Amino acid sequence: MKNAPKPSKALLKQIEEQGDELAYLQRKCKEHGIPILILVEGLSAAGKGTLINRIIQPLDPRGFKVSCIASPSRDEQLRPFLWRFWSRTPSTGRIAIFDRSWYRNLLDADIDKRMSETGLARAYEDVRAFERQLRDGGTIILKFFLEISKEEQTTRLAALQANPATAWRVDDAVLQRLDRYKEYNDAVTRMYRESDTDAPIPWIKLQAKDSYQATANAQRVMIEVLGKRVKLAKKDGFSTPKPNKPVPLPHFSNAPKLRDVDLSSSLSKKEYLKLIEEKQAKIHDLHYEMYRRRVPMVIVYEGWDAAGKGGNIRRLTARMDPRGYEVIPVSAPNDIEKSHHYLWRFWSEFPKAGHLAIYDRSWYGRVLVERVEGFCKEWEWKQAYREINEMEENFVNAGTILVKFWMHIDQKEQLKRFKAREVSPNKRWKLGDEDWRNREKWKPYEEATNEMFMRTHSCSCPLDHY
Amino acid sequence: MKNAPKPSKALLKQIEEQGDELAYLQRKCKEHGIPILILVEGLSAAGKGTLINRIIQPLDPRGFKVSCIASPSRDEQLRPFLWRFWSRTPSTGRIAIFDRSWYRNLLDADIDKRMSETGLARAYEDVRAFERQLRDGGTIILKFFLEISKEEQTTRLAALQANPATAWRVDDAVLQRLDRYKEYNDAVTRMYRESDTDAPIPWIKLQAKDSYQATANAQRVMIEVLGKRVKLAKKDGFSTPKPNKPVPLPHFSNAPKLRDVDLSSSLSKKEYLKLIEEKQAKIHDLHYEMYRRRVPMVIVYEGWDAAGKGGNIRRLTARMDPRGYEVIPVSAPNDIEKSHHYLWRFWSEFPKAGHLAIYDRSWYGRVLVERVEGFCKEWEWKQAYREINEMEENFVNAGTILVKFWMHIDQKEQLKRFKAREVSPNKRWKLGDEDWRNREKWKPYEEATNEMFMRTHSCSCPLDHY
Repeated sequence: MKNAPKPSKALLKQIEEQGDELAYLQRKCKEHGIPILILVEGLSAAGKGTLINRIIQPLDPRGFKVSCIASPSRDEQLRPFLWRFWSRTPSTGRIAIFDRSWYRNLLDADIDKRMSETGLARAYEDVRAFERQLRDGGTIILKFFLEISKEEQTTRLAALQANPATAWRVDDAVLQRLDRYKEYNDAVTRMYRESDTDAPIPWIKLQAKDSYQATANAQRVMIEVLGKRVKLAKKDGFSTPKPNKPVPLPHFSNAPKLRDVDLSSSLSKKEYLKLIEEKQAKIHDLHYEMYRRRVPMVIVYEGWDAAGKGGNIRRLTARMDPRGYEVIPVSAPNDIEKSHHYLWRFWSEFPKAGHLAIYDRSWYGRVLVERVEGFCKEWEWKQAYREINEMEENFVNAGTILVKFWMHIDQKEQLKRFKAREVSPNKRWKLGDEDWRNREKWKPYEEATNEMFMRTHSCSCPLDHY
Repeated sequence: MKNAPKPSKALLKQIEEQGDELAYLQRKCKEHGIPILILVEGLSAAGKGTLINRIIQPLDPRGFKVSCIASPSRDEQLRPFLWRFWSRTPSTGRIAIFDRSWYRNLLDADIDKRMSETGLARAYEDVRAFERQLRDGGTIILKFFLEISKEEQTTRLAALQANPATAWRVDDAVLQRLDRYKEYNDAVTRMYRESDTDAPIPWIKLQAKDSYQATANAQRVMIEVLGKRVKLAKKDGFSTPKPNKPVPLPHFSNAPKLRDVDLSSSLSKKEYLKLIEEKQAKIHDLHYEMYRRRVPMVIVYEGWDAAGKGGNIRRLTARMDPRGYEVIPVSAPNDIEKSHHYLWRFWSEFPKAGHLAIYDRSWYGRVLVERVEGFCKEWEWKQAYREINEMEENFVNAGTILVKFWMHIDQKEQLKRFKAREVSPNKRWKLGDEDWRNREKWKPYEEATNEMFMRTHSCSCPLDHY
């Protein structure tokens, strides 16, 4: 804003000092592995870019990333709405700054009436779950909204238009939006309401008129919130605070149970060979059809070691076009994955519409191996049931066909297969000490599996067993 | 190919046995950290998908990724031609399989005469450098071409059209290409010639007619090449073979020298404040102009510790729109970066056209810190000069403005600044033991810097000093 009034020396000094304080807190948050997500919303010319630039100036550029949220790209359009935001969430100790955010889509959809009332309500629900999940995973979320009057906006847009270097920023869409200032304001009012109901992640409103004062105010809130968390982290030596309320546990009474699986059913070799040829040909055609219609599809394989997940996947994909499917084997998270929310890697790998992603093990590891082996806290895996249901609902809302298989064998059959692996030169490598150790924990795994069925067999995506 | 003749039992058995052998070699390559890049080119309906699917079936899906190369997305169009391929190159121990590749663009451009003769020749040169760099970095590259006669292609396309599930694959573009079979063939002949001249990474031609035989042949070559490398790796305990030929060393006689820098020039505080306000306003406008015209820009900052790189970048960006620039601080590579070619991370971070990427330290680390500290072998940093020049030429060919700064101070000035940092509470964290250690190696760093100037001060992107 070239012609804006000059700030007082005292205010400039305050901004500088607060900047130093924030740089210090940034280092502390990095030390404690605290992820920070900052989003800045506001009308055109409210000064989002200026605010962000002043905030980042004193920070260590190694530790933050600014994302500008424009209209979704073709690649992003082919994914669920929150996909592009999930993939940009900050890892431990880093700051992700969003210039506009997921709210942009919702505000635009509201104003342009591009969504039904139900659709919009559901989208806000998805957003609330998204923010809550991140927060419960330890991320600090700061949501700033730069408020600007219609008069001030008009003046600023005129100033931008007068400068040849910035005139292009004031395009028709911006001017149309200015004309509909009141409707925009109504949509913002709804946004404030929607996002404050369930999840107490409050909006921080900033008066945009004086951009220096807005900067100082934003810094002050950041210092307060970051400072508080850093203090907590010092005390507990742990950056993810345990939720105060008890974790809600979903329950589906129609869920299958392991003991009900009929392990005696079988096929003769001849029947099998006939069937598999027939089905593979059918799958070959359906896979192309799915691609043509741009249906996203996700198949989850879970099951006991040596239950035959790998072989099953191989036979499923034998005649598929490799350009349209991907097998995603899930093992222990790597360093990058560990530094993110546990659902981040599954969101990031979500397939493009028309493609098939086959997960060989999946997000259910949170309530199976991580639970049984104690890799996460009890409240964390209990919390995961709801989070997993929410994620799958997100997928299904985006039109995804989601199929979940549990490959079941009993302990006797597993032992037989382990022994066969031991003597086969091509399969020996598949069998490790871990498999034998897991086998000894059959009971707790069985219990965890049955509870998993009970808590995640939701109507939109029930678990199938095989 | 539903109606293709059934393969003999012996051939099927061969494919199965070779599959087991490849699965074994895949595990060995993983063990030795050998990255593998396989690309499959060929006309429509040559059976690229079928070939790839048969090859991957016996492999461990944890270790490979199939990329289907279609037309570049908008995001990819805004980057240099090779950007999307660089970002998909395999990391240590992994296999990247490309269904079509960088050659697709070149073949299409050749047939449709979308490029001038010079442009095409230069693009092939870029491709040769790309493949050579990967190979010299230790990647195994296998390039398959599925050859198919016009008659066979016609028959197959008719079969695809007859099946409602696959008819959509035969679109107008495919049929037009069929009509121009001869031109396509000429382009392929040129491709064979172009890519064999300098870099001895041969094409492996496969007869596509019998898809099973083609699979068996492809497997055989893979077994041979992978087996040879695994044997080498065993012997040397090292997966990057040293090149046989001496490393070519570029030389630019007009390169600057450190001793020529005038360290006495200075500005009064008053002049400085006047100038900086003026220039920052100018930069504000130019930055928008650059965005509007979609010019990609890269600025590299190199220089002594405490030379003021960070402060310089801060003052450069003070009035820029944060949506249009990113500061990329380069420190020691993380695990993911370490598992790739050393240039991979710089390629991956290349900005979209219209955006500015500011590197605080850069790829020149290869010939500075990695050389001086012995983090890479002598032939590796010597090889890097040419590789860096080639990468920068790639950038410049894509219309990039590339500016390289060396921030210079002398040893006395550095000591003064180190001591000032020691007593400042806001700056103390910036100074580590490493800085003092680096200071002791001033001479070798000076030597490396002067050699860097001499070998990388190319006409298209000379080093500027400041």
